Amino acid sequence: MGTEIERKFLVAGEGWRSAAGPGLRLRQGYLHAGPPVVRIRQAGDQAFLTVKGPGLLTRAEFEYPIPPADAETMLALLCRQPIIEKTRHRIPQDGLVWEVDEFAGHLAGLVLAEIELPKPDHPFRRPDWLGREVTEDARYQNVALSRAAGPPE
Amino acid sequence: MGTEIERKFLVAGEGWRSAAGPGLRLRQGYLHAGPPVVRIRQAGDQAFLTVKGPGLLTRAEFEYPIPPADAETMLALLCRQPIIEKTRHRIPQDGLVWEVDEFAGHLAGLVLAEIELPKPDHPFRRPDWLGREVTEDARYQNVALSRAAGPPE
Repeated sequence: MGTEIERKFLVAGEGWRSAAGPGLRLRQGYLHAGPPVVRIRQAGDQAFLTVKGPGLLTRAEFEYPIPPADAETMLALLCRQPIIEKTRHRIPQDGLVWEVDEFAGHLAGLVLAEIELPKPDHPFRRPDWLGREVTEDARYQNVALSRAAGPPE
Repeated sequence: MGTEIERKFLVAGEGWRSAAGPGLRLRQGYLHAGPPVVRIRQAGDQAFLTVKGPGLLTRAEFEYPIPPADAETMLALLCRQPIIEKTRHRIPQDGLVWEVDEFAGHLAGLVLAEIELPKPDHPFRRPDWLGREVTEDARYQNVALSRAAGPPE
């Protein structure tokens, strides 16, 4: 078991693109909206089943690699529709990593940035493309986004 | 993905014990009551996460081994309580296998027998300790049993 400490932000403008890596295509859906959340994710040519306990900033997480063909079947037949499609860009900064998620499909236009911290009060620098924090805004959880008709607001 | 074809029966009397193996202790709980069912199971010193699609007689099933310590944590913290505890006895017969489950805890007194078939109309012999079929009786699904106050009826 790991414990995830993540903070999540809106993204303002395109300034992040110059620092971003090539991006990894993610497709994910939910076997259970939770709690506990049970997520199926395809990430490039890998796939994972993930169980997440309750909580927004800090939560227990269990992740297991699964055959990509299993993920394909579960995303198509057993997960709530529509599934989430997005491209994840990694931006290293001071030993931490920003993950900038550019959404596609029914969430096209939404861009979110997440940073994983070693402890809740760990300091981090805010790049100038960072917008409003939405860590505690349940509308921006992926499981809520999967149910939304479009990007929040 | 596998597809499970299982028929389930009540057990009448103790006649099955003379043919039964030593038994494997199972502890299982549910991250999601379904559909799809998401189950955590400890079986002896192994553990599994299993996803089961809709259906009673025939259902899609995905099963993954997980670390027993993860299962212990998820059974204690993330699964609906109480979890199910039972001992599974295997009784081979004509190339098939009867699995006789002797329940403990809140379901003590309940004994169920299951047989997995290669196809839905595959013939099988009914041993004299076999009782009424409950394949289509949702009360005897494990996920329903986990919620019940005691054995049905």
